[in-house]
Amino acid sequence: MKIENPTPIKWQFSQRAEQLQSSVIREILKVTMRPDIISFAGGLPSPATFPVEHMKTAFDKVLSDQGKVALQYGPTDGYAPLREWIAQSLSIDGVTISPDQVLMVSGSQQALDLLGKVLVEDGSKVLVETPSYLGALQAFSVYRPEFVSVPTDENGLLPETVEGIADGACLLYSLPNFHNPTGRTMSLERREALVETCARLGLPLIEDDPYGALSYAGEPLPKMLTMNPNGVIYLGSFSKVLTPGIRLGYVVAPAILIRKLEQAKQASDLHTSQLTQMVVYEAIKDGFLSQHIPSIRTLYANQCKVMLDALEEFFPVGVKWNQPAGGMFIWVTLPKHIDGMQLLDEAIAQNVAFVPGAPFYANEPETNTLRLSFVTVPPEKIRHGVQVLAGLIKNKLR
Amino acid sequence: MKIENPTPIKWQFSQRAEQLQSSVIREILKVTMRPDIISFAGGLPSPATFPVEHMKTAFDKVLSDQGKVALQYGPTDGYAPLREWIAQSLSIDGVTISPDQVLMVSGSQQALDLLGKVLVEDGSKVLVETPSYLGALQAFSVYRPEFVSVPTDENGLLPETVEGIADGACLLYSLPNFHNPTGRTMSLERREALVETCARLGLPLIEDDPYGALSYAGEPLPKMLTMNPNGVIYLGSFSKVLTPGIRLGYVVAPAILIRKLEQAKQASDLHTSQLTQMVVYEAIKDGFLSQHIPSIRTLYANQCKVMLDALEEFFPVGVKWNQPAGGMFIWVTLPKHIDGMQLLDEAIAQNVAFVPGAPFYANEPETNTLRLSFVTVPPEKIRHGVQVLAGLIKNKLR
Repeated sequence: MKIENPTPIKWQFSQRAEQLQSSVIREILKVTMRPDIISFAGGLPSPATFPVEHMKTAFDKVLSDQGKVALQYGPTDGYAPLREWIAQSLSIDGVTISPDQVLMVSGSQQALDLLGKVLVEDGSKVLVETPSYLGALQAFSVYRPEFVSVPTDENGLLPETVEGIADGACLLYSLPNFHNPTGRTMSLERREALVETCARLGLPLIEDDPYGALSYAGEPLPKMLTMNPNGVIYLGSFSKVLTPGIRLGYVVAPAILIRKLEQAKQASDLHTSQLTQMVVYEAIKDGFLSQHIPSIRTLYANQCKVMLDALEEFFPVGVKWNQPAGGMFIWVTLPKHIDGMQLLDEAIAQNVAFVPGAPFYANEPETNTLRLSFVTVPPEKIRHGVQVLAGLIKNKLR
Repeated sequence: MKIENPTPIKWQFSQRAEQLQSSVIREILKVTMRPDIISFAGGLPSPATFPVEHMKTAFDKVLSDQGKVALQYGPTDGYAPLREWIAQSLSIDGVTISPDQVLMVSGSQQALDLLGKVLVEDGSKVLVETPSYLGALQAFSVYRPEFVSVPTDENGLLPETVEGIADGACLLYSLPNFHNPTGRTMSLERREALVETCARLGLPLIEDDPYGALSYAGEPLPKMLTMNPNGVIYLGSFSKVLTPGIRLGYVVAPAILIRKLEQAKQASDLHTSQLTQMVVYEAIKDGFLSQHIPSIRTLYANQCKVMLDALEEFFPVGVKWNQPAGGMFIWVTLPKHIDGMQLLDEAIAQNVAFVPGAPFYANEPETNTLRLSFVTVPPEKIRHGVQVLAGLIKNKLR
């Protein structure tokens, strides 16, 4: 029996749902899926780096040897051998991380959601970098905080500004290595000062580190986690060093917080795929990442150099950008009167795309900024795309 | 540099996080993982039903043919061919479901979380069956509703009671087929009356249907979705018909709600594993489920009969239970003075476990109830476990 002419439902969304909007980036990505577009818009790693054969072997092995376990429900905190592997890999610089400080999640984005759920009270302050990762702003915004923008410069956020704005804050969110969107690296001095300040204020400090392994040259700077494991919440991910499509990340934090996050995860999705966790453990347990990651670094470093050279060659005087030491992004600052969103419309008309900087700001946006990603575009297209953008910018300088 | 003697953080959890506690069931499951325990506590499907070889072939095929796509980030709403397959499979009884009414999620539990996020306002009423699925109570409780228990009997909830308690409610949550925890089936008349009442009141009606395919005999009753696709939110899952460890489910609802849920999902975890979705599509697209599901039904029907026979043989007069027409659970009602939680302690001491009924009640619990699952226990152990429970119950009747 079908109900005849039912009263149409007037869908009423919660106040927190009213905060939600589709990410500008995801909307841009839909446009830029067109094969004729040169897209610097993606935040996607290069599929050339995905170890498909290696993953296939690992899936085959786990399903052959432990198929029934891998396909069954699993524990909420995650697959124990993988949690142990992570704890061990982070037990460095004199710090010991225990497996009960590790929670497996379905990508770092879920860690951000769970942290918002557990730590953010309606109306409480969340401190974020200026600009900050859009996905974090989205995840936290559902829990209706007051975002407070912490000033930054080319060496990351300015720790000395934190104390004056931290009163009543529930957390500070930072992304110190090869920042998204700016590509910047927080200096060692800043890290130490930030950890010290947050520890003194009793302010939970999130260290989001999806790109940390992607240093182009030399050792990455010490993790803030190792400076104060009792006060830092570290987020790691397999998306940029293995593959993102499997959705696997982790949170490392004091056990008391992990237990609360585990309860929140149980209510959110019970647990992360047992099969995926077992396969990733199988894929990495014998040292695969230490052979694999250098090949990603080399690829990205080369493509970054191609883009930097093209920017140098084609972009007019008055446009500024940074020289990333790793990661996937370059941040461009245009003369003040040029609006990135408007430039995007013109660029798309010429089959080039990027992400305007404005959506990355929690409060007043600097609209004359752009994020460029170079990792999925072949060198000759990087040069051509930059040349097109340069032409459009020059037109606006006349 | 490690910070010396930092101020220990006094972790302050949000009010919504204070609602969270670890599920009684998951705590019991930890005890019952001991191999010497006969556990009727699980909500886990039988691993004997997992098509390991078939899944292995599907993983191999997807990774061989489309590895780079499968391992890359994917769209938030899900893998299009799988969404189309689901839409088509639900376009029955004269109803057409379009793929844009389908959102893929990481198991039904995530659908419950997203629905809570998007529809539940602090303090607004959520109507649930008496008793109800514990995972739904957990998922919604984070969003701090007032739970209102809708009376039920052996044929499911009583639709005529809804209108009197629905004022200001944001949703009604139901599980009409082979209910968890009661194993009951909502009658056709009740379904029609409930859909009609909710449509008249403009009250969103959730039809959670993880067990619907597991009917022991005959066709399942019509889905409420087909009675009013504009007012019913249907939740489906691959956990009970394929495997749960991969975490894959879906929501079917009017497109306006799906778009809002999609935004919430994007903020929660970006998207569900692209690889998993492609593999499940590969595994089911040529009709695999229509061969596979009957074998699950037969296994569960047989084990259900073993337990029913044992209950009949061993349980004393004064104990009541139902005869499920499908699914994984039997609901036992003891004489009023026997407390299920206390009985559990005694049962565990004799290496038998089950889930007490109390945690399934949103409001006043009936403490003299138990949920028994028979699907993962071999027949001879079912008989022995029931005999042990019967002895403990008889002791309390003396």
